[in-house]
Amino acid sequence: MPKVSSKGEQMPASPIRKLTPFADKAKKQGIKVYHLNIGQPDIETPKAMLDAIKNADIDVWEYTASEGTESYREKLAAYYNKLNYNITPEDIIVTLGGSEAILIALRSCFDIDDEVLIPEPFYANYNAFACQTDVVVSPISSSIETGFALPSVKEFEKYINGRTKAIMICNPNNPTGYLYSQEEMEDLKELALKHDLFIIADEAYREFCYDGRKFISPMHLSGLEQNVIIVDTVSKRYSACGARLGCLITKNKEVRATGLKFAQARLSAGMLEQIAGEAALDTPDEYFEEINKEYTARRDILVEALNKMEGVFCPVPGGAFYVVASLPVDNAENFCRWILEEFSYEGQTVMIAPATGFYVGDDKGLNQVRLAYVINQDDIKKAMICLEKALEAYPGRGASLK
Amino acid sequence: MPKVSSKGEQMPASPIRKLTPFADKAKKQGIKVYHLNIGQPDIETPKAMLDAIKNADIDVWEYTASEGTESYREKLAAYYNKLNYNITPEDIIVTLGGSEAILIALRSCFDIDDEVLIPEPFYANYNAFACQTDVVVSPISSSIETGFALPSVKEFEKYINGRTKAIMICNPNNPTGYLYSQEEMEDLKELALKHDLFIIADEAYREFCYDGRKFISPMHLSGLEQNVIIVDTVSKRYSACGARLGCLITKNKEVRATGLKFAQARLSAGMLEQIAGEAALDTPDEYFEEINKEYTARRDILVEALNKMEGVFCPVPGGAFYVVASLPVDNAENFCRWILEEFSYEGQTVMIAPATGFYVGDDKGLNQVRLAYVINQDDIKKAMICLEKALEAYPGRGASLK
Repeated sequence: MPKVSSKGEQMPASPIRKLTPFADKAKKQGIKVYHLNIGQPDIETPKAMLDAIKNADIDVWEYTASEGTESYREKLAAYYNKLNYNITPEDIIVTLGGSEAILIALRSCFDIDDEVLIPEPFYANYNAFACQTDVVVSPISSSIETGFALPSVKEFEKYINGRTKAIMICNPNNPTGYLYSQEEMEDLKELALKHDLFIIADEAYREFCYDGRKFISPMHLSGLEQNVIIVDTVSKRYSACGARLGCLITKNKEVRATGLKFAQARLSAGMLEQIAGEAALDTPDEYFEEINKEYTARRDILVEALNKMEGVFCPVPGGAFYVVASLPVDNAENFCRWILEEFSYEGQTVMIAPATGFYVGDDKGLNQVRLAYVINQDDIKKAMICLEKALEAYPGRGASLK
Repeated sequence: MPKVSSKGEQMPASPIRKLTPFADKAKKQGIKVYHLNIGQPDIETPKAMLDAIKNADIDVWEYTASEGTESYREKLAAYYNKLNYNITPEDIIVTLGGSEAILIALRSCFDIDDEVLIPEPFYANYNAFACQTDVVVSPISSSIETGFALPSVKEFEKYINGRTKAIMICNPNNPTGYLYSQEEMEDLKELALKHDLFIIADEAYREFCYDGRKFISPMHLSGLEQNVIIVDTVSKRYSACGARLGCLITKNKEVRATGLKFAQARLSAGMLEQIAGEAALDTPDEYFEEINKEYTARRDILVEALNKMEGVFCPVPGGAFYVVASLPVDNAENFCRWILEEFSYEGQTVMIAPATGFYVGDDKGLNQVRLAYVINQDDIKKAMICLEKALEAYPGRGASLK
């Protein structure tokens, strides 16, 4: 019997899905499980997206151009230019989700064993994308004490070597919710120009910035045009995770031409999704204002409840819909499993993600968890009561780090 | 300015799209261009697919399970079992098009520099998929004289070495239209079992077999269960190329588990496409009978016209909707460009694909072209008149090989 590849063996399994069987078992026992574990928002997808598909008059569900339809790229460019990205439709490659945009960016820029510097904790699947493109992730620690701010330029330079090709950020951040400031972005620019690096910015959560804070993209930094690659998706922006529609944006013509070769190999992104994506771009600003109000309220409830629990610490993040908190437990993975397997309070429990999967190696973030505030405010409150009771009852309760 | 990767530089650009600018120019000059160059059928997509989406009641366009929805995989398994594949829904991973299924198969089975044996000419993008997964394509020549039949077991064995991990076929074949016989499939089985190889079978054109010939899948060969990986797509079956919905099927649990890790990294295939794909599986057999009648008629018109032209040879293929023909020209790429750039007959011309892109290296198939019979019978006739006139007028006319 022929064997699978060693790369296949090395591929990390999804850390977030590891606990799913335990949640399923709890549900089978009649326990209500509050899902704070994944970034699947409960927000309704704008009707206009689905209506655009319903109203489309299609005889043949055809391939589109590999780089995406002209009309979608034109409207996308207008959206980004309203945000002062100063791009043209030719700077965009439409992709099958943000995931494919990241894969194309890595393949276009990295040779085998080239390194990408990523502040950790980071989105767990970056590890999987790096594994399948033979890129080495060089993690640089950000700390819960500073709310996961960007490490200093000096700290970054300790990790930069001849194989370093890029710095990759997710802004606002998944899993920490941290929103990078103008100063931090200027630091990245300094590093990129000095060391000739790409800046790959995952901006899936761009529209979710709170407390009046300003979102800064590397596309806003003059002089950095040739270094920047933006990866984006409609998944979170329009609560359309199942659409698998993203894009890669770069003003670097060589990167764009190279990325297009990878896009051509798989022929096309989804035709209907591009029709829906085009309609989505007419979503009025009020839609985001409403949602941001809702997310802010949820964040405030969540963070306040967490910080009221004995031994728990949770910074207040500026964006996205995640927080990372430290818990007074021996091992967060054991705890997250225990609350599904052995615990319930008034017939309810909560599913949260241990943070180890967002770090490289098994020894970091051991007492940290990620919580996604993608359920309604009442349910968040109930989930937090469960969590508090669970922490009180957990046999592996340990000293908090904070 | 940071540089793109050397892998990005090596990535082959799409050979089929190379001539597009010349076709566009011809159209701008008012010339009608008959497109026989790409595998985009003109057949209408079954209404039921699009209706299923239109009738779906969706509030949140969510992720599905990474392996695909249970209901779609159940119905898919029933479709394959009607064809005697003897599989379960758990043997299926739903993918973002056939392209992703191929990528996942290569990544799951091959380490860097492992070799895949592929009878050539083969679908040009296999080169691109191999390049991005660091797999070495070892081409084994099939010949136009035998209608592109499978090379002998003995011939295959000349190419098998310690790094050979799999044989990959496309059946019925793109670009040749060749349909492998029971005997040829048994040969592949012998090779796979003797040398411990995977058989990766791209069956995108399964439903298009003509003249009452029987389609044989490696899934039909008993004793080969652990070696077989099927890659499939709805693109051609239901004329839904723009849906980007495919799947990978294997009864090898290790391959399935490994493939799932790659699927989990990109989270989900398209939600709406899976709804449409489910509806498509209710397509009655008469739909395919009708289409096969139409394709057979087109093939006959095309092949007869080609073989009537002086110095042209075209075998009669048993499936898919392509033929490869040899032309009496010095260089088919120059000729294909010339008919777009410099030739027209009664305000019309024809776009066909030079076959070199379907071979490894630049020196094979130099006088061959691929023609896709994806336009109506009248247009095929007109296109063939153009081609005949063009061959008569072409200054680089050379001796035919046959």
